[in-house]
Amino acid sequence: MVDNNGTQKIVGLAPNREHSFYGRDVVSVNQFSRDDLSYIFKVADEMRALVRRVGATDLLKGHILGNLFYEPSTRTSSSFIAAMERLGGSVIPIHGVQYSSVSKGESLPDTIRTLECYADVIVLRHPEVGASAMAARYASKPVISAGDGTGEHPTQGLLDLYTIYSELGTIDGLHVAMVGDLKYGRTVHSLARLLKLYDTELSFVAPEILRLPQGIRGEMDEAGRPVHETDKLEEVISDADVVYVTRVQKERFADLTEYEQVKDYYVVTPQVMAQAKERMALMHPLPRVGEIHYDVDSDPRAAYFRQMENGMYIRMALLAAVLGKV
Amino acid sequence: MVDNNGTQKIVGLAPNREHSFYGRDVVSVNQFSRDDLSYIFKVADEMRALVRRVGATDLLKGHILGNLFYEPSTRTSSSFIAAMERLGGSVIPIHGVQYSSVSKGESLPDTIRTLECYADVIVLRHPEVGASAMAARYASKPVISAGDGTGEHPTQGLLDLYTIYSELGTIDGLHVAMVGDLKYGRTVHSLARLLKLYDTELSFVAPEILRLPQGIRGEMDEAGRPVHETDKLEEVISDADVVYVTRVQKERFADLTEYEQVKDYYVVTPQVMAQAKERMALMHPLPRVGEIHYDVDSDPRAAYFRQMENGMYIRMALLAAVLGKV
Amino acid sequence: MVDNNGTQKIVGLAPNREHSFYGRDVVSVNQFSRDDLSYIFKVADEMRALVRRVGATDLLKGHILGNLFYEPSTRTSSSFIAAMERLGGSVIPIHGVQYSSVSKGESLPDTIRTLECYADVIVLRHPEVGASAMAARYASKPVISAGDGTGEHPTQGLLDLYTIYSELGTIDGLHVAMVGDLKYGRTVHSLARLLKLYDTELSFVAPEILRLPQGIRGEMDEAGRPVHETDKLEEVISDADVVYVTRVQKERFADLTEYEQVKDYYVVTPQVMAQAKERMALMHPLPRVGEIHYDVDSDPRAAYFRQMENGMYIRMALLAAVLGKV
Repeated sequence: MVDNNGTQKIVGLAPNREHSFYGRDVVSVNQFSRDDLSYIFKVADEMRALVRRVGATDLLKGHILGNLFYEPSTRTSSSFIAAMERLGGSVIPIHGVQYSSVSKGESLPDTIRTLECYADVIVLRHPEVGASAMAARYASKPVISAGDGTGEHPTQGLLDLYTIYSELGTIDGLHVAMVGDLKYGRTVHSLARLLKLYDTELSFVAPEILRLPQGIRGEMDEAGRPVHETDKLEEVISDADVVYVTRVQKERFADLTEYEQVKDYYVVTPQVMAQAKERMALMHPLPRVGEIHYDVDSDPRAAYFRQMENGMYIRMALLAAVLGKV
Repeated sequence: MVDNNGTQKIVGLAPNREHSFYGRDVVSVNQFSRDDLSYIFKVADEMRALVRRVGATDLLKGHILGNLFYEPSTRTSSSFIAAMERLGGSVIPIHGVQYSSVSKGESLPDTIRTLECYADVIVLRHPEVGASAMAARYASKPVISAGDGTGEHPTQGLLDLYTIYSELGTIDGLHVAMVGDLKYGRTVHSLARLLKLYDTELSFVAPEILRLPQGIRGEMDEAGRPVHETDKLEEVISDADVVYVTRVQKERFADLTEYEQVKDYYVVTPQVMAQAKERMALMHPLPRVGEIHYDVDSDPRAAYFRQMENGMYIRMALLAAVLGKV
Repeated sequence: MVDNNGTQKIVGLAPNREHSFYGRDVVSVNQFSRDDLSYIFKVADEMRALVRRVGATDLLKGHILGNLFYEPSTRTSSSFIAAMERLGGSVIPIHGVQYSSVSKGESLPDTIRTLECYADVIVLRHPEVGASAMAARYASKPVISAGDGTGEHPTQGLLDLYTIYSELGTIDGLHVAMVGDLKYGRTVHSLARLLKLYDTELSFVAPEILRLPQGIRGEMDEAGRPVHETDKLEEVISDADVVYVTRVQKERFADLTEYEQVKDYYVVTPQVMAQAKERMALMHPLPRVGEIHYDVDSDPRAAYFRQMENGMYIRMALLAAVLGKV
């Protein structure tokens, strides 16, 4: 569905065009213009209203999602399943690929071309960077990435941005602080790339060994966004409109002593929240393993479970859009 | 959905109230009054009639069940899936949790609060006693326990009681004999607790090392039920209206030589059934591994496969009830 | 559903009867007469037209498929799931049986009789030869085999034959060459047994240690089909109307040095295809691991992905037929 320069394909479309996502792949946040995002968020708003009012619709009745997960991710796969089911569609769940016939040595393109014989749209989670783009290249049906290795996780980026928009009513003019593992955390990279399309101020708060990669920092500078880097949450907590906390992922560390040094570097407690703005959003992609204290959950600014729920609405919007039903 | 004294919450409601299970959790057989049980059985009867007549309904169309199994139980999970699908609803099947992102160290409350962002009702199977009650405490959507460790398995208790009622037309006045592993067998404990609400006579038949725990024996005595304990099936076989046989579960024994001593203690053969009443029900929660001989299967008193089927009707009734659709 | 001589049951019905597959099992290609096959292919044609026109139907609304896989086979299980979903039915997916309660030692007949309490039709994949026939014997609902060990894989045979028919418009009069592992490849055995019902010429191309078993060779001779055996693809490539290539399955070899000798024996490249007829079909049951070069994929004679798709239509036809809806 994408050419070799595929991730640029949709971005290249002019802002004033009709928003036709029909038949497109979703493999990178770089595909999306501000105008695309406004459109997807508008559809997601409608999906939320619909789910709250009647639970589900028949918009995708008769359509099948091939949910192909080469590595387990209960959260993301459940979110896509729920999204498809609430749209009236069905799902082929393929979640234990490592144990399956695919391990008979079949190539990813062959697996994708087989699955698209049965399904109308494919969601792919894969451990290798670039797998989604490759799948999209071979598929004649739309492919939506659910994350590939340390590469992108575009629907997470979209739901994060949508949550900021939903919580605060705007994205322009905000000061967004990202906290924790900024080196390996792909959700941070995806969100930063989306935020640079808006008039935002960005703070990156991380211990030295988990700092934002130079490349992404460079992209922010190029986009003309004011950027602060620090290892002290207290420097930014009182000014930030959004504090986006991430888990330090043990599985990314070759050296576990390094992991032990940084794993509990930042812990958001009610005391920390006492220093934050009255109107702001505390976000986390979940799962958390201690970065945000349970006592913070009842704080109205704690947005992370609403963030989860938004994931379903964003995925409903994308599924309906690539299948040409909105 | 339940307060700290949650399992008492529904029981506390008076017999003459309207039977509103809407929004309630099902985490213990102790929640149910006789009146509750009559109501659920009436709905289960209707579900059976419906399935036999037309196969399925659209009662729960647009509703999603999050089927969260932390340990495998094909039988129970399939039964809940079938129940939801025959009601026109959809399922998010989460069956390999041990291999999944949940093992990234997330707490049960966080997993539950994530899943309820996608689903309308949650079924939980968990290896730890008390997990269901904890899940119910954190969830804002109804939680139905599908068993937690050596704790309760309330829907099994309900389907067992419903089977007695369906097979014999009454529960009051019956002599029910439970046979096999009465120490670890949680289905026996759940059923005994339900039976004590009725005017029943109970026989507990087990080898010495697998006798009914003192606590449960005490509960029966308190309820004023006549109780016999013996290790000889022949003492009760000719008088019992119900013989409920259980498997000796190898996985519960630390000492395998103890397991070997008792595993084949009771085997129900056609010869044993020849001594039983002409009108009675032979039950087993399945799987069996030799406790009931295959030659007994064609005996009209062999109720264990009808018991399986009843599980689906009871779960249909519970799902419809907690979602407010009956 | 079948008597002890079950696989003959349907074959025994006369060609001129009404085609009632209602309530029947599908456990062997030997069940099917030419007339049966014509009927199933006609229904499969209709299913294809339906899917291409509107995606799905409500023909099996309210019906549940129990998809019971004792060994992983993503391709086959996905195809059955898609087939059931496109017919408007639901699925109980049981794919990790080796990890499940079934491993508590339950017998296959008990598992089947439990599953049919919940489902209306059962698809069974099992590692042991004869498992499907045994399941069919105990089940009161229809059982469709999805392969049992080195035994049969009847729906694969049917979809292969249907693909020949779809690609070339006929089966009579064709020269079909089967290439690769003819010893262990059960798809080859099933297809050969179906082809012998037609006026076909058969070539079996394999290295010495992977030759067609004597028994099946004998069946072909008995049916009066002209048969060639050779180890040279070049002897048949220019005359064959169908070239059916199979993977040499590593898992079938006790001695891996034997596997290494034969694994790359035949590789179909564009150069090989240059020698083939202009109108012919190149088939493969997939997955491939090198037997057909990727550069062949764009050749219009490369039929293997259409073959995959046909699997869904054949399974739709069978499900609808055994549930009495066509």
